[in-house]
Amino acid sequence: MSDGDSLLRLSGNDGERADAARNRRLLLEAAALIVELHGAENLTMDEVARHAGVGKGTLFRRFGNKTGLIHALLDQSGKDFQAAFMFGPPPLGPGAAPVDRLRAFGEASIRRCDFQGQLLRAAQEGPEALSHPTQRLARQHLGLLLREAGTTGDLELAAYELAAYLNAGLLIHLKEERRMPHERLLAGWHEMVERFLPR
Amino acid sequence: MSDGDSLLRLSGNDGERADAARNRRLLLEAAALIVELHGAENLTMDEVARHAGVGKGTLFRRFGNKTGLIHALLDQSGKDFQAAFMFGPPPLGPGAAPVDRLRAFGEASIRRCDFQGQLLRAAQEGPEALSHPTQRLARQHLGLLLREAGTTGDLELAAYELAAYLNAGLLIHLKEERRMPHERLLAGWHEMVERFLPR
Repeated sequence: MSDGDSLLRLSGNDGERADAARNRRLLLEAAALIVELHGAENLTMDEVARHAGVGKGTLFRRFGNKTGLIHALLDQSGKDFQAAFMFGPPPLGPGAAPVDRLRAFGEASIRRCDFQGQLLRAAQEGPEALSHPTQRLARQHLGLLLREAGTTGDLELAAYELAAYLNAGLLIHLKEERRMPHERLLAGWHEMVERFLPR
Repeated sequence: MSDGDSLLRLSGNDGERADAARNRRLLLEAAALIVELHGAENLTMDEVARHAGVGKGTLFRRFGNKTGLIHALLDQSGKDFQAAFMFGPPPLGPGAAPVDRLRAFGEASIRRCDFQGQLLRAAQEGPEALSHPTQRLARQHLGLLLREAGTTGDLELAAYELAAYLNAGLLIHLKEERRMPHERLLAGWHEMVERFLPR
């Protein structure tokens, strides 16, 4: 094997070979595009295979079944969001004022809730559990930004309170059952952030 | 039938005869006491019948099975809480300042979350749904108190935010998984109310 091969293999995920990781990423991107364009109810293994230009066998070997694919999508979507708020460009990522990053975090959460909601519904799952690592990391991030913004008091609980507003289950309820437009949810988030800033 | 009979029947619940309603109440009180003293895992139809001094047949005719009994308990507990914050003595009920009623509402919610949590776990159910009438009424109440306290902005969303902190699922997570003491949850609530008051 060449040096280039080893380098590529280092960038693989969980010991997967780099080309397998690339394929996986490609398949997930095709699946995500179908969900965004046509909704999760139109996500079929056939469609994903066709869009990604691979055989259906590859898809089944990789994800087991449609439920497996949906879980992989939810997982990837969570990881992408994490990467964006931890290492991505400002204002969501580092380099902007804490208050602007708080605002951006909520905006991004509200934006991605449609996609997440589609997937959660398709997987017949409730909103992500409070003790899930993704949720914990999001709360740590919010708590840190609050501290940097000069907020005092019980910042761990404050982070829970902010995260509760951005919970996918609540946002979907507000959009679908209470018919609140996107702009109202954004304005609500900004108002909430304002309440948590030092007086 | 005597006049006294008709009067009693008027006080019955959902067309139940008054004595049946009294019996139902008695059985639920016995069951609630067992849950409070020994935990929901020790709630058995036998124990409830014994404590209430009725035959087991009566219990099964009334609630179907243990799951039915637990649902009846959850329902009754919700109704009792509603009655307390709508018509009960201040500061939870009318007659106190809005801010004091906001504080009392959270305190009572935090107090009752152990009992609720036991029941929800026993029924293997998630925290109550956002569109459940009990939850809707609680949010309306919170929104009204915020308005009375002079809070401005999107009070409907603000009520959702306050209610999210008092969600049984969140409180149980904070107590059991994060091991936060009762006092911290109370202080967190008071701090949150403070943030929502006009500056």
